[in-house]
Amino acid sequence: MNIPECNLKKVVIIGAGFGGYQIATKLRRDKFQVVLLDKNNYYTFQPLLYQVATAGLEPDSITHPIRTIIKNKENFYFRLANVYRIDPKIKKVYSNMGDLSYDYLIIATGSTTNFFGHKNIERYALPIKSVMEAIKLRSLILQSFETALFTKDVKERDRLMTFVIAGGGPTGVEISGALSELKNFIFPKDYPDLDISRMSIHIIQATFRLVDGMSKASSDATLNYLKKSGVNIWLNCLVKDYDGNTVYIDNGQKIESVNLIWSAGVKGSIIEGFENVSIEEGRFRVDAYNMVKNYEGVFAIGDVAAMKRDNRNAYPMIAQPAIQQGIHLAKNLNLLAEGKEMIPFRYIDHGSIAIIGRNKAVCDLPWLQFKGFFAWLIWIYIHFINLIHVRNRIIVLTNWIIQYYQYNKSIRLIIQSYKRILPEKKEAQ
Amino acid sequence: MNIPECNLKKVVIIGAGFGGYQIATKLRRDKFQVVLLDKNNYYTFQPLLYQVATAGLEPDSITHPIRTIIKNKENFYFRLANVYRIDPKIKKVYSNMGDLSYDYLIIATGSTTNFFGHKNIERYALPIKSVMEAIKLRSLILQSFETALFTKDVKERDRLMTFVIAGGGPTGVEISGALSELKNFIFPKDYPDLDISRMSIHIIQATFRLVDGMSKASSDATLNYLKKSGVNIWLNCLVKDYDGNTVYIDNGQKIESVNLIWSAGVKGSIIEGFENVSIEEGRFRVDAYNMVKNYEGVFAIGDVAAMKRDNRNAYPMIAQPAIQQGIHLAKNLNLLAEGKEMIPFRYIDHGSIAIIGRNKAVCDLPWLQFKGFFAWLIWIYIHFINLIHVRNRIIVLTNWIIQYYQYNKSIRLIIQSYKRILPEKKEAQ
Repeated sequence: MNIPECNLKKVVIIGAGFGGYQIATKLRRDKFQVVLLDKNNYYTFQPLLYQVATAGLEPDSITHPIRTIIKNKENFYFRLANVYRIDPKIKKVYSNMGDLSYDYLIIATGSTTNFFGHKNIERYALPIKSVMEAIKLRSLILQSFETALFTKDVKERDRLMTFVIAGGGPTGVEISGALSELKNFIFPKDYPDLDISRMSIHIIQATFRLVDGMSKASSDATLNYLKKSGVNIWLNCLVKDYDGNTVYIDNGQKIESVNLIWSAGVKGSIIEGFENVSIEEGRFRVDAYNMVKNYEGVFAIGDVAAMKRDNRNAYPMIAQPAIQQGIHLAKNLNLLAEGKEMIPFRYIDHGSIAIIGRNKAVCDLPWLQFKGFFAWLIWIYIHFINLIHVRNRIIVLTNWIIQYYQYNKSIRLIIQSYKRILPEKKEAQ
Repeated sequence: MNIPECNLKKVVIIGAGFGGYQIATKLRRDKFQVVLLDKNNYYTFQPLLYQVATAGLEPDSITHPIRTIIKNKENFYFRLANVYRIDPKIKKVYSNMGDLSYDYLIIATGSTTNFFGHKNIERYALPIKSVMEAIKLRSLILQSFETALFTKDVKERDRLMTFVIAGGGPTGVEISGALSELKNFIFPKDYPDLDISRMSIHIIQATFRLVDGMSKASSDATLNYLKKSGVNIWLNCLVKDYDGNTVYIDNGQKIESVNLIWSAGVKGSIIEGFENVSIEEGRFRVDAYNMVKNYEGVFAIGDVAAMKRDNRNAYPMIAQPAIQQGIHLAKNLNLLAEGKEMIPFRYIDHGSIAIIGRNKAVCDLPWLQFKGFFAWLIWIYIHFINLIHVRNRIIVLTNWIIQYYQYNKSIRLIIQSYKRILPEKKEAQ
């Protein structure tokens, strides 16, 4: 790769997400040459992807060009490249745009959708982990209704108007809530010649509780909110199979739907080239300094890193550990460069929050749980201040305010139409 | 097509652009059943497409869902369908979503890019007539720079950083101006490790004047503005051929560039099914009532219609005639429904305006020509008030204000990467 020669140690960061962004901006560039690699030229604010998918925000308002963070930064190089392999023995990364040597490597590749080996589900269902996937999902939702208008076959029409969300974590709950708002406030006006009361939304959760990473109080509140909004809730159920028309559930029941949204799991975006002993449950095993087991000078942070805390599970795959580890690792590398010792990482849990709809959210703080309008305000505030750029903030807020007062979502656009993969015909010849 | 039966006469409108939108909203729905067909579910504000292509605006801020105009309108049906053929004898339109009968038909399909039969240019160059094309162009521009960073081959790097705009009409001039702003203000910060002074912009115009639909004064001012911004201007030249790497000009010269932007011509989006005598230079021949020659009850408006004025050319293919004809035809059909006579169309030329860059525009009013900052303000005002929806206005204005003060364009996103068609290898085997 075409990076200028330099006497400083070279730090290569793979991934400009929550964690990678922190490191890239906080490393001392008088001590290191910093090279940031990402397969996209933009940073994505992932917690709002579901709003892109449900026509609440434009894709460009939750993304921001990575190059703006480079502005006037010496010794900092961004390259748009997709890294597919690492050779830690010779300290090299291999990408679609050529190879690159490093002194320190930071893997901050985040996570990707986990279909748990279900090939059919992977083929027919839609995940929501990237901007392109969110745009596709928006198109699928709108196209289903546009298509429903053309059919006189009631069964097919219902199938087009049925939405199944696999996974009752924060993303699944937020999508269900947003879909129920579309059903209750927007689609009846958009499709006066369709009977929108026949639109049905199902959420399928593997355990006995929705958002089961949160407190019992919050998960009960979530259940009540969604029930009141008309969402059908299936607890202790798993999606077993899907053929593009029918969702098969492990309790023997099935739901006819062409819209299966998969938010039932993620896995670390591991890169090839490491021994199995360094990988655990699809994430890199790292020590308290985020160093990958058995690989001196290679670090992993965020979703792709599994840092064990004395007999407890690794940190959850959410934004907070990624951000905190990014900041901490930058500090540690800066210490190293000064010949000082690194400090072990300590996680501070700031709590968790999920939005369910208009004026409705649930919030768990370490010392308090609450719900309703106040939690909803807090959710808005947190997501607003965490957007990186002033343009994103103004545009997101503008959209939210207009939607709030107009009971409207103006971004119901099928800019890129989604080509649904049609189920294979099963009839005998 | 699944449209309810009704005793009223059925008006089918093909196309929800500037003209179609006017008719659809102004027809009396106590007299007509109105069916609006479009291949997109959104309305596009085409005059700002070039800003999407040059990273100044997000695609969603210049588009608006068509269904919002339906809200609470009785007897009004929108269907997302692509009409490919009309049978005027039996009064039927055929689309990818089925067929539909009409009493009155209004063709408002607008125009599409005209490559004048140049197959190679069509294959390798990028037009800019739709939102998807603008997104692709944005990706192409940004990808060219991202790719330039990886190459040590100076010739290839220059080729990636050279932009050729074929066509010096308003669109070509506006794109050239926007590209020169990227060169002068933005890319030097984005790509500190590229020598941006090597970026070159060429505009190729077939006649002796840029924007030759405007006054001599305005076209001289445009030339001066662009020259000062560093754009290379080729007058009285035509692009003869293009192989994806080299632009061949009819004066024997050539320009090495992987970025040829085609804004050199449009043609009416004619639909199959009519006699040749009704079509002239790729547009439907219409009388002063917008009725298509030889076809009672079939109307065409806007870019796809050629309305002759006593020995003068048909109206230009721009927004104004489309809007005025749309409003007028709606009035005429409403008159017909009351048993009254239709009134012939009269065009009112409000003048024309083109933007060249920061604080720079040219404006021709029927009684006055002017340029510079005031023209630029007028351009902004006109485009601002003509955006349909309040959300679009706020978001467009926010982007413009931030860009103006920050000398920045925040939408430099390659959300959907553009797969460049590579030139065929010509070496002997």
